[in-house]
Amino acid sequence: MKLYEQVATTLKDRIDLGYYHEGDKLPSVRGLSQEHGVSISTVQEAYGLLMDDGIIESRPKSGYYVLKHQAPPELPATSNPAPQPLVVAQWQKLQHMINEYGSTATTKLSLALPDTQASTLKPLTRLMSELSRNAATRVLEYEHAAGSDALRHQIARVMVDSGCRINPEEIIITSGCQEALSCSLRAVTEPGDIVVVDSPSFFGSVQAIKINGVKALEIPTSPETGISLEALEMAFEQWPIKACLLTPTNNNPLGYSMPDKNKLRLLELLNHYDIPLIEDDVYGDLSYTLPRPRTIKSFDTQGRVILCSSFSKSIAPGIRVGWIAPGHHREHIMMVKYLSSLSTPKLTQMAVAEFIAQGYYEKHLRRVRRDYQRDRDAVIGWLKRELPEGTRISYPQGGYLLWVELPDQIDSNELNQQAKQEGISIAPGTLFSASGKYKNFMRICCVNSADPALEKAIKTLGRLCKEMLTRNLLSQD
Amino acid sequence: MKLYEQVATTLKDRIDLGYYHEGDKLPSVRGLSQEHGVSISTVQEAYGLLMDDGIIESRPKSGYYVLKHQAPPELPATSNPAPQPLVVAQWQKLQHMINEYGSTATTKLSLALPDTQASTLKPLTRLMSELSRNAATRVLEYEHAAGSDALRHQIARVMVDSGCRINPEEIIITSGCQEALSCSLRAVTEPGDIVVVDSPSFFGSVQAIKINGVKALEIPTSPETGISLEALEMAFEQWPIKACLLTPTNNNPLGYSMPDKNKLRLLELLNHYDIPLIEDDVYGDLSYTLPRPRTIKSFDTQGRVILCSSFSKSIAPGIRVGWIAPGHHREHIMMVKYLSSLSTPKLTQMAVAEFIAQGYYEKHLRRVRRDYQRDRDAVIGWLKRELPEGTRISYPQGGYLLWVELPDQIDSNELNQQAKQEGISIAPGTLFSASGKYKNFMRICCVNSADPALEKAIKTLGRLCKEMLTRNLLSQD
Ligand SMILES: Cc1ncc(COP(=O)(O)O)c(C=O)c1O
Ligand SMILES: Cc1ncc(COP(=O)(O)O)c(C=O)c1O
Repeated sequence: MKLYEQVATTLKDRIDLGYYHEGDKLPSVRGLSQEHGVSISTVQEAYGLLMDDGIIESRPKSGYYVLKHQAPPELPATSNPAPQPLVVAQWQKLQHMINEYGSTATTKLSLALPDTQASTLKPLTRLMSELSRNAATRVLEYEHAAGSDALRHQIARVMVDSGCRINPEEIIITSGCQEALSCSLRAVTEPGDIVVVDSPSFFGSVQAIKINGVKALEIPTSPETGISLEALEMAFEQWPIKACLLTPTNNNPLGYSMPDKNKLRLLELLNHYDIPLIEDDVYGDLSYTLPRPRTIKSFDTQGRVILCSSFSKSIAPGIRVGWIAPGHHREHIMMVKYLSSLSTPKLTQMAVAEFIAQGYYEKHLRRVRRDYQRDRDAVIGWLKRELPEGTRISYPQGGYLLWVELPDQIDSNELNQQAKQEGISIAPGTLFSASGKYKNFMRICCVNSADPALEKAIKTLGRLCKEMLTRNLLSQD
Repeated sequence: MKLYEQVATTLKDRIDLGYYHEGDKLPSVRGLSQEHGVSISTVQEAYGLLMDDGIIESRPKSGYYVLKHQAPPELPATSNPAPQPLVVAQWQKLQHMINEYGSTATTKLSLALPDTQASTLKPLTRLMSELSRNAATRVLEYEHAAGSDALRHQIARVMVDSGCRINPEEIIITSGCQEALSCSLRAVTEPGDIVVVDSPSFFGSVQAIKINGVKALEIPTSPETGISLEALEMAFEQWPIKACLLTPTNNNPLGYSMPDKNKLRLLELLNHYDIPLIEDDVYGDLSYTLPRPRTIKSFDTQGRVILCSSFSKSIAPGIRVGWIAPGHHREHIMMVKYLSSLSTPKLTQMAVAEFIAQGYYEKHLRRVRRDYQRDRDAVIGWLKRELPEGTRISYPQGGYLLWVELPDQIDSNELNQQAKQEGISIAPGTLFSASGKYKNFMRICCVNSADPALEKAIKTLGRLCKEMLTRNLLSQD
């Protein structure tokens, strides 16, 4: 253990033991340096580490403080989806969602958009600008179908943080995680097959299942530990499952990360029943604490897990750079990707490779992890205050999405309609189910809580909910 | 008719009447201005027009000359594919093709790569560079699922040149033409369906058919007028055809453009049998003469034609900007595109929109049309000289691809293997058929004939072919 790590550990222990409480000011850098007989810069590094871990914060011109975290809210119950495979519905609702990308709603809580204004992204656009100028001819050529060698190399390096050792040559670059998921699904399923998903589940994957003519079997899922392994095993016994599609780390929309022992048990089941897993890790790098959770892929020794990810959430969605670590399905998936879009644009691949290689990705992650944790705490606080009694909220350990269970009588599609009148959009719960469940749920994106519009939007949602409840009560009389 | 157009017409008539022959020097600008009593600049404009039409060329410090065109070569015969729907084979061969993108072959005649070194592309990379710097936050956001408004507007303008009047709001931007084709196919077919294609046919579409679980019915196709309408009508009578997928203008690999009357008759048949057409127009803007041929889409009044295209051939493939004008299939295709890759990267869309708006696209087209026609003539000349007797060659009126029929005894897969030893790659004919036909054909890309490597490569191919023939003769003894 390095010296600054020792200092950090001591401090952390003191906080854990209640020696310092939330909001307390910590000793000055100078004081601590004298106490421990270490240099100023060692103390600064130790404080830096604790900030990265989201344990303390620095307030300009004042010093370091123990970070206040929201007490965990009351969580929604484990879900209870339909117990048989279904053709996915909700097509019309998705139409609305597609239009959201171009909508003029002033406060778009409906889409899972990261903070693209972060100053730590500046080097990326600078790199894009420089490469356009200095490597003009190269950026105009077709990239290898599997993607840029430099980028694949950097992705393999980044994946080490999740416990994965992947040969860069295995990796296939895609246009975002959606293309990764779509190609993987097409490679391992055929129309009529059944695929298992967690529930609630990202609408992009659920609908990609539909469009492949495949049926979705939704499994009960806990907002703390993820998919129910008991229910999953029963499903494997009962149905001819062709594949699993899960987001086990910083799940969208529920926010949980499956504990390692659940991940391992899941892999055992997959091995036993010989079923491939499509693991969506798109929020994996946005865990609030380090080291980030391991992927199921990192435990896989059989090439059974197809890992899909992208930089859409951890860098920016507009660059559309994603990837697949395809395990032993590589040949088939490569072909599907090639025939879906030949190759992925070259400039953004080159720029992202440099962004990672030069250390900017790590710096950016350090910043947004902290920001998003604060955003989570702030927005949970407002939701607790503004929304009607009986509201339950997820408590993510990474990412920037909240899953909110409203009182039974509230229909979030109606809520969304009304919110739009006031320039606000939310993602209605029914989008996250194959069968139209989660009518009284909504997913909201809580990025950038420093913008007063966000708190205002939550207030508006609270008012609209309460009005709906009152109307419902009146109409029952 | 404007004055300079009159002058140009007079000159063209004289050339057509044999008053000036190929290679002849034309009157000086001054002389012509006196003869016609018009200004110097009018004559210059007239000469400019004739250059754009590929009729004359200007030689620095010398004057204007009637352009020498190769006499048309002897064309391959109309194709004669298998008369029933087939599951597409040749998968393994495509694997080789995929690797070509990253191959180190020094002279890659195998891929359909445009000239990305043209100076007329400089403004594009400059725009990309400026936008990365000046619109940094915007380029990082998700683009609308259907694509950038500005770009769709510009594409609608460009499409007017092919006779199309499209509402920009209909257009869906894709990651290249391959994604356009793939999404369109997925929207109008289901596994087990039959789709009609021309034959030979671009391997990307043939294999996209396979991967959708659809069967391909190949129709005899003439290298001058395209798909046989008689054979097509018979196929419509005989089989439950779900869609047609054709490249009617500057076809890959055959180079023909279907005459307008064939396009109209084809549309009548489609209307009569109520079959949608996926029209691949990716080489349409690269016609050597203006106005460029009309698309079948431009004659369609029923929303039956799904036009797919991209700027991969007319600007550069690395930017991956394509589009669909989806007719009445819009809703379904939009959904498939969204679930395939959500949206297309933003920066390249913004840059291409500006490139067109500022007139650079037109300038670039003017230049490459002329270049590619010269390349065609040069390479056909070399092929005639170097390849064994009995070789037949297509005579494209646009684009930069040649389809070469070698003597029967030559297997172009073997030729490709041998050529690779010498750093040259070709696209073997069997890739262009569902059933492995065209064994003694190859497609070659003839861009940049000014590079001595190209002539050298043709010489090498000639030598290898002749050696193969000799070996075959010997082994028959
Ligand atoms: C869980 C999950 N997977 C995949 C995606 C798609 O990501 P991309 O924008 O990289 O295609 C999203 C985007 O919202 C997501 O939330
Ligand atoms: C006829 C044809 N259609 C489509 C494509 C794919 O074009 P893009 O690179 O825009 O995906 C090609 C590329 O070679 C082609 O030749």
